[in-house]
Amino acid sequence: MSEKNLSCFLYGPGDARYEDRAVPEIEDPHDVIIRINYVGVCGSDVHWWTQGGIGANSILPGKPLVLGHEASGTVHETGPSVSTLSPGDRVALEPGFPCRRCARCKEGRYNLCKEMTFAASPPDAHGTLCKYFKLPEDYCFKLPEGVSLEEGVLVEPASVAVHMARLVDVRVGQSVVVFGSGTVGLLCGAVARAFGASKVVMVDILERKLDFAKGFVKGCGTFIPDTKASAEENAARLIKEHDLEDGADVVMEASGAEPSVQAGIHVLRVGGSYVQGGLGRNMINFPIVVMSEKELTMKGCFRYSSGDFKLALSLIAEGKLPVKELITKKVEFWQAVEAWEMTRKGEGIKTLIGGVQD
Amino acid sequence: MSEKNLSCFLYGPGDARYEDRAVPEIEDPHDVIIRINYVGVCGSDVHWWTQGGIGANSILPGKPLVLGHEASGTVHETGPSVSTLSPGDRVALEPGFPCRRCARCKEGRYNLCKEMTFAASPPDAHGTLCKYFKLPEDYCFKLPEGVSLEEGVLVEPASVAVHMARLVDVRVGQSVVVFGSGTVGLLCGAVARAFGASKVVMVDILERKLDFAKGFVKGCGTFIPDTKASAEENAARLIKEHDLEDGADVVMEASGAEPSVQAGIHVLRVGGSYVQGGLGRNMINFPIVVMSEKELTMKGCFRYSSGDFKLALSLIAEGKLPVKELITKKVEFWQAVEAWEMTRKGEGIKTLIGGVQD
Amino acid sequence: MSEKNLSCFLYGPGDARYEDRAVPEIEDPHDVIIRINYVGVCGSDVHWWTQGGIGANSILPGKPLVLGHEASGTVHETGPSVSTLSPGDRVALEPGFPCRRCARCKEGRYNLCKEMTFAASPPDAHGTLCKYFKLPEDYCFKLPEGVSLEEGVLVEPASVAVHMARLVDVRVGQSVVVFGSGTVGLLCGAVARAFGASKVVMVDILERKLDFAKGFVKGCGTFIPDTKASAEENAARLIKEHDLEDGADVVMEASGAEPSVQAGIHVLRVGGSYVQGGLGRNMINFPIVVMSEKELTMKGCFRYSSGDFKLALSLIAEGKLPVKELITKKVEFWQAVEAWEMTRKGEGIKTLIGGVQD
Amino acid sequence: MSEKNLSCFLYGPGDARYEDRAVPEIEDPHDVIIRINYVGVCGSDVHWWTQGGIGANSILPGKPLVLGHEASGTVHETGPSVSTLSPGDRVALEPGFPCRRCARCKEGRYNLCKEMTFAASPPDAHGTLCKYFKLPEDYCFKLPEGVSLEEGVLVEPASVAVHMARLVDVRVGQSVVVFGSGTVGLLCGAVARAFGASKVVMVDILERKLDFAKGFVKGCGTFIPDTKASAEENAARLIKEHDLEDGADVVMEASGAEPSVQAGIHVLRVGGSYVQGGLGRNMINFPIVVMSEKELTMKGCFRYSSGDFKLALSLIAEGKLPVKELITKKVEFWQAVEAWEMTRKGEGIKTLIGGVQD
Repeated sequence: MSEKNLSCFLYGPGDARYEDRAVPEIEDPHDVIIRINYVGVCGSDVHWWTQGGIGANSILPGKPLVLGHEASGTVHETGPSVSTLSPGDRVALEPGFPCRRCARCKEGRYNLCKEMTFAASPPDAHGTLCKYFKLPEDYCFKLPEGVSLEEGVLVEPASVAVHMARLVDVRVGQSVVVFGSGTVGLLCGAVARAFGASKVVMVDILERKLDFAKGFVKGCGTFIPDTKASAEENAARLIKEHDLEDGADVVMEASGAEPSVQAGIHVLRVGGSYVQGGLGRNMINFPIVVMSEKELTMKGCFRYSSGDFKLALSLIAEGKLPVKELITKKVEFWQAVEAWEMTRKGEGIKTLIGGVQD
Repeated sequence: MSEKNLSCFLYGPGDARYEDRAVPEIEDPHDVIIRINYVGVCGSDVHWWTQGGIGANSILPGKPLVLGHEASGTVHETGPSVSTLSPGDRVALEPGFPCRRCARCKEGRYNLCKEMTFAASPPDAHGTLCKYFKLPEDYCFKLPEGVSLEEGVLVEPASVAVHMARLVDVRVGQSVVVFGSGTVGLLCGAVARAFGASKVVMVDILERKLDFAKGFVKGCGTFIPDTKASAEENAARLIKEHDLEDGADVVMEASGAEPSVQAGIHVLRVGGSYVQGGLGRNMINFPIVVMSEKELTMKGCFRYSSGDFKLALSLIAEGKLPVKELITKKVEFWQAVEAWEMTRKGEGIKTLIGGVQD
Repeated sequence: MSEKNLSCFLYGPGDARYEDRAVPEIEDPHDVIIRINYVGVCGSDVHWWTQGGIGANSILPGKPLVLGHEASGTVHETGPSVSTLSPGDRVALEPGFPCRRCARCKEGRYNLCKEMTFAASPPDAHGTLCKYFKLPEDYCFKLPEGVSLEEGVLVEPASVAVHMARLVDVRVGQSVVVFGSGTVGLLCGAVARAFGASKVVMVDILERKLDFAKGFVKGCGTFIPDTKASAEENAARLIKEHDLEDGADVVMEASGAEPSVQAGIHVLRVGGSYVQGGLGRNMINFPIVVMSEKELTMKGCFRYSSGDFKLALSLIAEGKLPVKELITKKVEFWQAVEAWEMTRKGEGIKTLIGGVQD
Repeated sequence: MSEKNLSCFLYGPGDARYEDRAVPEIEDPHDVIIRINYVGVCGSDVHWWTQGGIGANSILPGKPLVLGHEASGTVHETGPSVSTLSPGDRVALEPGFPCRRCARCKEGRYNLCKEMTFAASPPDAHGTLCKYFKLPEDYCFKLPEGVSLEEGVLVEPASVAVHMARLVDVRVGQSVVVFGSGTVGLLCGAVARAFGASKVVMVDILERKLDFAKGFVKGCGTFIPDTKASAEENAARLIKEHDLEDGADVVMEASGAEPSVQAGIHVLRVGGSYVQGGLGRNMINFPIVVMSEKELTMKGCFRYSSGDFKLALSLIAEGKLPVKELITKKVEFWQAVEAWEMTRKGEGIKTLIGGVQD
């Protein structure tokens, strides 16, 4: 019997079906076929699951989509030009690859490529919730001995945090305030530490998230905003409670919430830097005059790019990002819906879905 | 009879009085006393004149303030350590000087110094609308032969445009869209050209301003937003009309208007850069998700800093900024109110107030 | 009769032969076949012609090499995925393309790719001195209306100058000293001007080269070093004669000569920047303590990279680089040896070899 | 009895004398008078002691000089504008202060100021080997609780390493090779680690120095060059033994030795970065073609500048630089000659000279 590629298709909100499809084939000589071992559940998956889409993207009628973009696996087959990987190698997957030819690709910002093929993008780019997945060799990252396949899944969200830290140029000795203490926020805090930040303050409105953060981000401070206070007031209190003198050097925004964006601008010192990682409402009320008069630098952030996956994996291998602590549950391949539901309810931090069993 | 320092004090909204006060004296060995020749009128002066303040600053009871911060003059007296200037030298004035000791001063961003002494800042830092004004030697810029005292006044607003261009890092070959075609916007356009921009598009809602811009900014395009269209629609039309392909490389915002900020974000290509020069409402409705997903770089901008005055003067001297064209009227020292009123009514571009006559 | 690809092969020093070989075929869907119109002669071609090699590269026995890497042509055939070019389009050729997958390619420095396929590199990468040449679409640059095919050849050396200027970060208002006034040096001077340099000083030991430079680099100064004086002495005299105060902001070294490198270090101000474009002896006597104590930034330079060709072509199209003036002679395709000999003897500046006639 | 300022004057090679001179007085309102507690001995002190000078500087006849530029002390008196320090505060001394007015000072590179007043610079700027020393407030760095006065002396050499690391822009995840394992080299290695380098290789020709380095620079590799091998050969072996693949990302040169400079260039990957900290012979034989073809970035380095002292002290306070381990001997104030002799003979690493006893 020929091999099948069992996959979890989303047909629309609340409609997931496991179906076989063809196993991908080597086309480009640098192609690699990976047998998926684990897929992580991300907040965006929940949006797809409950609403059939996210932002401007959605499932098209008659075009069911395989979800999943955080994944690790084992090399199954390699194209003839592949020289750095062999069948059996364990890898983390960077789940999108660009055209390699446009101005953005050639200047080192391939995440901004208009022709990016990114996992779980409608209509045609299926995700990693399947048995076999194809990627170019240079988007597969061999896991070093000490890094497990489970941890390998976390390279993807860690790369988001690394990309944010590099965009905002976190420097040794700086003070960094992280808004939002979900997976990406936690990783931002730990990455800021790994980049040498002297002081990291984690912010969230849920005390239990900050309790976890205290263990995950070595020596961090924590702050719960008063939802009845203004952004200025919360910022002023944060600065005072954490001895930030004239304000923080850097803000990493990983919540997307309007009050956090506002407080982030107010908590920065003059000349400070801000990176927007979280996504929330399209339009927000924004203190532009304060941003301008403090002469802040603000950076948008989209996924990850040149060197981010490599650095994230290296930080994990060096023990600087204890990503294992983030994995709170593992389920079987056929339990994807269960996993999405857990994430929807805010149970645990990161749930992994196992690969197809033979 | 001892020398007097005739000055134009603002006592409150609509209440200006000419009064004598003491001539400043050399205290620091690097001090220079300048006899003022011309003072330019800026939009912020009109705010003071009509409302007795601007932003968080205002005239305090019993603390009348001398206005004026765009100025040129002639060296009257020099401190014993002054080595680069002599009495009779014609100079442009950089009207604020910092503490020189704080972290911001020492890292080259002295405009962000908390202890800045800036002309026309309440309660004690009087402005340049007077006969004699004192500055440190290194904040006086000797005018080269070909630059007149009238043009010298324009070094200040030109420095704002230079600072914006340097913050946003305008590069040779780029496309630049400038929102707002007042004095600073016009100078932004011309500075962008001097920095090598291949394409400059000037935006304003007043056709006559754009007519002037066409002459002032060599080879620029122009665009009048449709005030009934959305920011996205205006941006899309601008991109199409000016062949900006995937969008502009750089936006210099010199209007402070909310629709301009929004259109500025939409008109940029992915990975583009934006600098906020104009000041308007404190809070605006801001497309943060677009900013983030395009991975834009945004910079606030506050006055000017290290090297800006020198570069602005050098561009004027090389003929790259035809600032003379901006001077539409000159009045006498005792006609300050008349000058403010002209600016309030939008008459002409830059009005100069002459110095005190003997 | 099937089409042939007449090419000029170098078999060894002084041994060039015109021979047919197969016309290249579309393999990758982004491939473009170009009918060559003009090939420029570069100093390195003369090395190949007279010595059968340059640096570590040389003709291998039984492996004759087609020379030529400065070229323009007309699109002959396009692969199925090519969308920006059509047969008949006139193009400048960027004569090397990288692997697109390694760390250097992905960070935007593809010129440093170890797997670069560069024209006229032994043993297998033939050059442009032939009838038909194959390149990926994104390494062919469509010439705008006002740029001739002859000028198109000069985009290559202009890209070297652009790459140098970007590496050394030439800024508006700076003073730039260019050592060496051959083709690349001349283009460095003109590019420095286009980047906004206030002052450009061209250096050469041949007066006639500087006479040409005066016309080519708008408003430049010139300097002839005294070959009997020390590097310090020549630098001091250059600084004095050209009013460079504490020294030049930037040095662009385009000669490769040891005395020029040394004088370049001495002519810079503290904190200045230097780029090494010229290639000469492998080891030179170098003033390392002066380099260190002045805290200079030095950059090596290898060919050109992301965005350089596009910018060079754009500067030519805008009239900022009058490359036409550099073309001093055109010969027929079968006169390559004659062209190399002219360049060897220092006759003229740039000689173009025409394409194969039907 | 009026206070005296006992000082150790060097009159010429081998001629040191302890003499009283006047206690410095507050002149500028930001002046601080410090009672010196410890002075470190640096290799340059030995040059002064044995040869009466170093480089272009030397003792002038009739102008004896007080040596010493690594020092810690206790605040004795403060000028009226001093707000951050009080008598009794323990401080590390940044032993040079600039004019604060020139272009270099204002752009944040005050170490390049031509009017720098630096400790132990002939003829008039005496060093710290005395009882009382005067500095501006912002050049005195208050020691936090956990940092001893002995450790405070090491902030100065640590700042050199920090300055080097910032100039060469050491980044998280990079591989760094440090040439020379004396005080500055050791600190470079530890600073590279604190900046996040994944791999640090310490190089020296003395095995005992590398034995110490292994303990001081956490997890570093070590390499002893073969003095009979070429620079290329040593570099190739280093790359191989330490799995540096295509070469190191960064070289920090802290020996000044010609073979180290050469090997440093060869050990770098294409596009790598190099900083020259060590000072040796003025002119060396330098592989300029390799530097150029690899497109390296080289930085000279002179002392330290904006933010370096603050960051160095912060790294010490956070326990990232175990400077205490470097202090191998302490002697009394009157034993300066003994201390210099120990350093001359290579005994221990850092010798501290105690302050004047009452």
